[in-house]
Amino acid sequence: MARPDSPGAAETRSDVQQRLDRAFNPRTVAVVGDKRAMGYLWLRSMSTFQGKLYSVQIDPDEIPGIEELGVPNFASLLDIPDEIDYVVCAVPRQVSPRVVADCIEKGVGAVTLFTSGFAETETEEGIRLQEEIGQMARQAGLLLIGPNCMGIYNRRLGLRHSWEQPAGDAGNVGFISQSGTHCINFSLVGDRHGIRCSKNVSFGNAVVLDAADYLEYLADDAETEVIGIYMEGAQDTRRFFRALRETARVKPVVVWKGGVTAAGARAIYSHTAALATAPAVWDAAMRQAGAVQAESLDETIDAVKALVYCKPGSGYRMGLIAMTGGQSVVITDDFEREGLEVPLLTAASYEKLSQFFNIIGGSYRNPLDSGGTIGWGLLPQNLEKLLGVLDEDETVDAIAMEVGAGFLARRMRENPGILDALLDTMTAHRERSQKPFIAIAHPGHLEDVSAMIRSRLLERGIPPFASFQAGARALRRAIDYWRFREGLD
Amino acid sequence: MARPDSPGAAETRSDVQQRLDRAFNPRTVAVVGDKRAMGYLWLRSMSTFQGKLYSVQIDPDEIPGIEELGVPNFASLLDIPDEIDYVVCAVPRQVSPRVVADCIEKGVGAVTLFTSGFAETETEEGIRLQEEIGQMARQAGLLLIGPNCMGIYNRRLGLRHSWEQPAGDAGNVGFISQSGTHCINFSLVGDRHGIRCSKNVSFGNAVVLDAADYLEYLADDAETEVIGIYMEGAQDTRRFFRALRETARVKPVVVWKGGVTAAGARAIYSHTAALATAPAVWDAAMRQAGAVQAESLDETIDAVKALVYCKPGSGYRMGLIAMTGGQSVVITDDFEREGLEVPLLTAASYEKLSQFFNIIGGSYRNPLDSGGTIGWGLLPQNLEKLLGVLDEDETVDAIAMEVGAGFLARRMRENPGILDALLDTMTAHRERSQKPFIAIAHPGHLEDVSAMIRSRLLERGIPPFASFQAGARALRRAIDYWRFREGLD
Repeated sequence: MARPDSPGAAETRSDVQQRLDRAFNPRTVAVVGDKRAMGYLWLRSMSTFQGKLYSVQIDPDEIPGIEELGVPNFASLLDIPDEIDYVVCAVPRQVSPRVVADCIEKGVGAVTLFTSGFAETETEEGIRLQEEIGQMARQAGLLLIGPNCMGIYNRRLGLRHSWEQPAGDAGNVGFISQSGTHCINFSLVGDRHGIRCSKNVSFGNAVVLDAADYLEYLADDAETEVIGIYMEGAQDTRRFFRALRETARVKPVVVWKGGVTAAGARAIYSHTAALATAPAVWDAAMRQAGAVQAESLDETIDAVKALVYCKPGSGYRMGLIAMTGGQSVVITDDFEREGLEVPLLTAASYEKLSQFFNIIGGSYRNPLDSGGTIGWGLLPQNLEKLLGVLDEDETVDAIAMEVGAGFLARRMRENPGILDALLDTMTAHRERSQKPFIAIAHPGHLEDVSAMIRSRLLERGIPPFASFQAGARALRRAIDYWRFREGLD
Repeated sequence: MARPDSPGAAETRSDVQQRLDRAFNPRTVAVVGDKRAMGYLWLRSMSTFQGKLYSVQIDPDEIPGIEELGVPNFASLLDIPDEIDYVVCAVPRQVSPRVVADCIEKGVGAVTLFTSGFAETETEEGIRLQEEIGQMARQAGLLLIGPNCMGIYNRRLGLRHSWEQPAGDAGNVGFISQSGTHCINFSLVGDRHGIRCSKNVSFGNAVVLDAADYLEYLADDAETEVIGIYMEGAQDTRRFFRALRETARVKPVVVWKGGVTAAGARAIYSHTAALATAPAVWDAAMRQAGAVQAESLDETIDAVKALVYCKPGSGYRMGLIAMTGGQSVVITDDFEREGLEVPLLTAASYEKLSQFFNIIGGSYRNPLDSGGTIGWGLLPQNLEKLLGVLDEDETVDAIAMEVGAGFLARRMRENPGILDALLDTMTAHRERSQKPFIAIAHPGHLEDVSAMIRSRLLERGIPPFASFQAGARALRRAIDYWRFREGLD
């Protein structure tokens, strides 16, 4: 009985959690059924695994290719002369019950069924097979992940879903996903955004272990500081909501829900056989739990980025710096549209600003239109003053700054020293100030420069966003979470 | 009296339009007051101008630099031995009345006052000067553009705001902007998205010519097929709404409104001294006029792209193709969230699909999860079948397709022939089908590949978008416009 909440469950939460800990941190891994037609997806992905890797394959045509990869192959899991902590199974669905039986007999920590073709196909055979393997695993207390999923990614240990995923260094963001695509994309795209994953899991049809099991595990996991989730539907919705409430009290959880529209609900059934929850019920539960909601991969990554990189702050009043008058209007609209405020500053701030602001050509009410002071002249000492004024102003809770639009991007490409100087100033501000601080570098027409600027900002620990709207939305979500933690909402 | 609607206006609409036509298509241009400190912004930008270019500058320190650029310089507009169709004036605000007087005496077609420091500064001196030059121009019937703006961009003639703007070839999209930044960015960023501008104008404080004048001009302009507008506030709101109604009847107009929030309204006053219109009033007027609304530069560009590249269609029912099950859920949610529909297909379609769809691993209800047929196998003949089924299905009004996510992007980089084959198939579909057709290539973690794919799609005349949401939103807006034109809404 792997489900601690099932009637008559024999195991406590901590039993499951301990065994999940073995699966998430394996010393030995076996891949069953990898083959050339899949490009040896699994064995190649596991090439970075820091423990011992074994293969199980009986097809004589496949074995030489596996041995070329340097992985010892066996005809059965039971033949491996080692304890096995974690198994990935990629055999055809008809064969999967036999592999599950072997896993039970071998006493493995957990098995991921990559195999699809179960309940999500809505076929009699698929549904029957899913019930069969589920029952086998539950009766034996085997942790079964999936089927129809990618299983566990542990970046530090090099246990991967794909040979493109980063490996070898530690991360602090966990991701739980009902979709393999989104799970991999979160790790790959997130890495470009400075998000290093700790432990991820793609769990597919959730026949034995459900989202709540993984969430409880990551809630307790010391290296995981922020959690992202892609969910289509929990097997036990109440239990998922409860786990979410408990987790959000100790670390931020960003939840991206798939299948919120009518046709989307139809699509999730075809995908993972998940049943839809009414959007209003879901929304209310998320709010009560203090979860951060997101509507896409990009929004999930942006919210996680704000939560990871910003110092926490619970006020909505923004101090904004834009590069031109036109952008001052747009940044203001975009932040106010997301429910943040753009107040007038204090008289003391205006007095300081008027001392060095050139009144002709730039406004400095808020946003500060820095075209006349740093944009055209690109003077870091002026930026230092602007940031200093906003940091000291008590009507400002958080700060957002445009970097590198248009002509400025071009100048930064021509003269990298300009960017270095601005980054130094921004870094000093970030260290000094206790207010959340984000930067926006729109791709514009010089996408390569903008990407370079965003990457340099990340190196300095300053979260960059590709549009005012994305930055405003992410910051609003982060602030909402920090308010929840402070008991303000 | 340049304002045809002012009381006692002596001019008809066609008088103003004829003179604007001279300014938008000048044979001769003079730049007054360009200088080294501005990097000779204007003279360098005009280096591509296909007519005659003159400079007016009296500062002896500045003249050698101007002559080095090969531009003949004069001490006064009146000294130029040629008729002048269009003048750009970049002198300090105090000097601007004298230049305006010279323009009047010279009989120039129009003058753009790049100079800022007028009503937008909310200073007595700025407001007084703006009134003075406005009165001078109106009394003399001089077309004054601005002040506090960039004036006219004509790509075909090489008349530019910036030396980065494309020049020499014709375009079919006009842009009218109260902000110089947004006007330039629309042309630069738009160009990356396959949008070639015909005639753009940045008009700033609108003291004499107002947005409606430019709109009426572009409405009649044969080479302009789609119009984009960035507006903060019209001087004469009723007249602007009327011009918009008349224009939208003959060509699409996409309107991006700045200053829609409370703090945004404050920012527009500091920027162009424009007064805010209540958002509800604005919104109702836009709907009545049949204008397409957008909330950012990106959204404006995306809507224009859909209008330029798609065959028109007035139905909301989408046929969707995604690359994985996870993306099938997300594309469905994103299109339904934008008010488009994702219906079940006809029985005839499902019969055709079942003949070649591998039931295990991919769903084909709608979206078609093409992972099993084209994603993994990358077989263009299968894509041709999928597109053919959606094209023939009478429940499908428009088609959207994911291209090049994740592993597929990687394979396209490794083997460009895969992309060529898919593009050939998509191009043949685009030519055959009468339904609107868009593609989505998310940046993912291989941003360079994704950018390359989008650029290749544009070459084939297929509009690419960087996210499902952006594509859905743009297509919804285009369909709404086509419905308006058909009298359906």
